[in-house]
Amino acid sequence: MSMILFRNGQFVPEQEAGVSPLDRGFLYGDGVFETLRCYEGKFFRLARHVERTRAGLARLSIAPPAWLDDAADILRELVTRNAVAGGVARIVVTRGVGEFGLLGKQATEPLMLVACWNQPPPAAARYERGINCMIAQQRLMATAGIKSLNYLPQVLARREADAAGADDGLMLNSHGHVAEATAANIFLVLRRELVTPSLEGEVLPGITRAAVLELAHAEKVPVVERVVHATELVHAEEIFLTSSVGEITPVTRLSGHWVKVGQPGPITRDLMRAYAALVKRDAK
Amino acid sequence: MSMILFRNGQFVPEQEAGVSPLDRGFLYGDGVFETLRCYEGKFFRLARHVERTRAGLARLSIAPPAWLDDAADILRELVTRNAVAGGVARIVVTRGVGEFGLLGKQATEPLMLVACWNQPPPAAARYERGINCMIAQQRLMATAGIKSLNYLPQVLARREADAAGADDGLMLNSHGHVAEATAANIFLVLRRELVTPSLEGEVLPGITRAAVLELAHAEKVPVVERVVHATELVHAEEIFLTSSVGEITPVTRLSGHWVKVGQPGPITRDLMRAYAALVKRDAK
Repeated sequence: MSMILFRNGQFVPEQEAGVSPLDRGFLYGDGVFETLRCYEGKFFRLARHVERTRAGLARLSIAPPAWLDDAADILRELVTRNAVAGGVARIVVTRGVGEFGLLGKQATEPLMLVACWNQPPPAAARYERGINCMIAQQRLMATAGIKSLNYLPQVLARREADAAGADDGLMLNSHGHVAEATAANIFLVLRRELVTPSLEGEVLPGITRAAVLELAHAEKVPVVERVVHATELVHAEEIFLTSSVGEITPVTRLSGHWVKVGQPGPITRDLMRAYAALVKRDAK
Repeated sequence: MSMILFRNGQFVPEQEAGVSPLDRGFLYGDGVFETLRCYEGKFFRLARHVERTRAGLARLSIAPPAWLDDAADILRELVTRNAVAGGVARIVVTRGVGEFGLLGKQATEPLMLVACWNQPPPAAARYERGINCMIAQQRLMATAGIKSLNYLPQVLARREADAAGADDGLMLNSHGHVAEATAANIFLVLRRELVTPSLEGEVLPGITRAAVLELAHAEKVPVVERVVHATELVHAEEIFLTSSVGEITPVTRLSGHWVKVGQPGPITRDLMRAYAALVKRDAK
């Protein structure tokens, strides 16, 4: 792989894009990231991803690099240079290199890296048959809600699920309530109402999550954002996950048990169709 | 700075030691680290640091790199090449580069980086007058107890303390009990007994902490490891922090109030002397 990346104003080959071992993103996970899906060279709601990057940087008191304004141009250039048809893009911004120690007051030049590469979409079977989830033992961390470079709890939960033969782990927040999957938000259908954990519960403000809420309103599906208890998962008529790369993924098994009839449900399917149409219309 | 670093079997200049932007240590903080103090080219209890690295890697299911066995030789070489008299060393091991996504099953070649550089010891005033701490709002994270590359809660707590004019922040665990400072363990003297949070409470098994417990036993200071409530801090006769770089640092102010008489207490001073003697004897 000889991918070209964007790195603080320059387009460089992967081998030359090395991050300083003293960069705080590497030393402490002191930075944020975004993952986007690339649709035939286009992106869905890039502006929202940039907005969320800015919000994350503000939470960490990292000055946003000026290049963030050029995210669309940078991605277009990477799509061309790497000949990306369908794939994934990642934006990373760290506090950069500073003096030794946690404080990082002298780290005044953030590092911004952008990568975009070809990658096949998730397997069709995931959408046709749905995936198998379990509740992970690993809890979310105390900076949940920021898409930071501290993603070890999610890594551990995904590995825990894999070891148990499941596709993904559902993670509880510090109160023991359902928060999200390892890299996706979660929705349940309960008595024909669409339910998703509210953002107050240490939940990442997902961009696909927000799009699904819009679509549900437009399609007149009753929807509520609230605390979701783990026991409610058992009673769900439908469950699905949302993320930029995975879009809307039905969950049809939970810890080995079928969710209702074990097939993607009608509300999930409607939203999958509506989301595909929205992406087709709005990606640019 | 043109420091020489060790990187997977080779000694390379800092500019050539760049970490792949696809390394999981950078993307997710999927790895562990150790910080050691270098005393005239020597290190205190290096074997314990290596042991803790192995324990952390085991928690993350990362195969320990063979080079870990050579840590002493690697550090000796770095001390020579970088002409280090007194300073700091850091060992980092990550899961390396893998396929896209959280799971990282195909990441089979860990990255091991070791750096060692000259750095003056912490300011003498910190030991003579003691430091000022506050209780940080930021809680520890759900993988506390592992010295992982997920150190953002600690970064945020340190910055919170700095913004409030304090030297360090004391962090509570998920139960709201006192766990540690941002990069140090904590001890209190309560009714002439030495008290420190037990390791069950999401507390890092500090190597200086263990040495202080040994010294306390040897000096017949009564000592107990248990749950420590935040309210107990107010009643402490003495408070001090322990870490490899900071050794034993007296805390004489807490949120602007004096701890007892506002001077390093007698038990703290005794242990500081005993620790200095231990390091002098055992560093190699």
